[in-house]
Amino acid sequence: MSSPIGKKRWAIAEGYIPSWSNGPAPELISHEAVCMLNTSDQDAHVEITIFYSDRDPAGPYKLTVPARRTLHQRFNNLTDPEPIPHGTDYASTIESDVPIVVQHTRLDSRQADNALITTIAYASD
Amino acid sequence: MSSPIGKKRWAIAEGYIPSWSNGPAPELISHEAVCMLNTSDQDAHVEITIFYSDRDPAGPYKLTVPARRTLHQRFNNLTDPEPIPHGTDYASTIESDVPIVVQHTRLDSRQADNALITTIAYASD
Amino acid sequence: MSSPIGKKRWAIAEGYIPSWSNGPAPELISHEAVCMLNTSDQDAHVEITIFYSDRDPAGPYKLTVPARRTLHQRFNNLTDPEPIPHGTDYASTIESDVPIVVQHTRLDSRQADNALITTIAYASD
Amino acid sequence: MSSPIGKKRWAIAEGYIPSWSNGPAPELISHEAVCMLNTSDQDAHVEITIFYSDRDPAGPYKLTVPARRTLHQRFNNLTDPEPIPHGTDYASTIESDVPIVVQHTRLDSRQADNALITTIAYASD
Repeated sequence: MSSPIGKKRWAIAEGYIPSWSNGPAPELISHEAVCMLNTSDQDAHVEITIFYSDRDPAGPYKLTVPARRTLHQRFNNLTDPEPIPHGTDYASTIESDVPIVVQHTRLDSRQADNALITTIAYASD
Repeated sequence: MSSPIGKKRWAIAEGYIPSWSNGPAPELISHEAVCMLNTSDQDAHVEITIFYSDRDPAGPYKLTVPARRTLHQRFNNLTDPEPIPHGTDYASTIESDVPIVVQHTRLDSRQADNALITTIAYASD
Repeated sequence: MSSPIGKKRWAIAEGYIPSWSNGPAPELISHEAVCMLNTSDQDAHVEITIFYSDRDPAGPYKLTVPARRTLHQRFNNLTDPEPIPHGTDYASTIESDVPIVVQHTRLDSRQADNALITTIAYASD
Repeated sequence: MSSPIGKKRWAIAEGYIPSWSNGPAPELISHEAVCMLNTSDQDAHVEITIFYSDRDPAGPYKLTVPARRTLHQRFNNLTDPEPIPHGTDYASTIESDVPIVVQHTRLDSRQADNALITTIAYASD
């Protein structure tokens, strides 16, 4: 591949970690994830900022996506500087020092059978 | 972040509020939402227009997304100038005076277990 | 709105009309739809072409999306020049003489509870 | 159509083949697919690379999408140079010698009723 694929700035306007779950853990715990792909030969240093409807943003949450690796990060597991409350509307930006590709996924198992959503995030120059 | 992320004009071609629901309210009421993220330092003044298959468009519906905040607006709750009928095909445009990011989500709980969809909306210059 | 939003050429790489359904008709019949929004002041004359894995493309299927209207067209209901077989992989292009926005949706009710997918289609200049 | 629609480089940051299924095979086996549309008059020679979280990438997996055809390739069925393990996070790039359109789909039937996701993949110049 001639150059790394992707952009350095991404946004996900939808964010919501369901408050309850059905089914075996950890696969079917209700969760929301940011999937990142780094095709470059350098580690990607990523900063995630969480935006809320009624308070100032939280973050940055700092992550590394190693060179030529993917990282599927559950928002549920972000704890530093603070966890994201469940049952609360949020949104996020993802900024990287090398181009990456970002996709958003949620598994909602609040009812007896799970529901899934995904979308490529919004990319910016 | 050096500049606000997003665009000022967005469109969602799919719109449909299911006519019935299963599960506890308000979380599992069938609904459709427009999720907006404003990363800028200025409030975003947003105008939503609703397009139908068989009549003239309705709106604008005026909303504010405060600076550095997200707003997940259920279409079900738009009432001024008029509510959106359920069980009816529609589409929407979202126009803002500052760049925002827009994502479309629906929760359909017409059957015993809910179904979910999402996509980043179509952005335009 | 200063100019109509959208593009004139779109593509959907995924297409599949499930072969069976559960639930009341017509709402919960398994179906796949192309949702089109025309914000312009002129009628959009649209031509859909269906691509298969093992035979030549079919079409064009000719539709009109009136000025300032949306049309949510079920692929199931396209019959001229020929219906799309169920349980068969296909893909589609959507070409219009004025800019439109295109979104793809499927409702799959093969099992007891329905599943839904959506995505904004791929837009091209 | 004046020129083929699409791009030559695509990426999907989310990838996960569920480890189990419910429902009749092959339709309702849990699977993940890359749907490719080639509207051009030349065969598309496609190379897929699979990225993991904890090991070097695998591939290329070589496929042909014939001229004016679509190919919905299940990741489950890729075997050369090696199969993709189930229950494992991965991501993918799709590179073609002619422009194509790529869409990502997963059917998850781990619980009694299936869940579906789709998104147009990320396109790059």
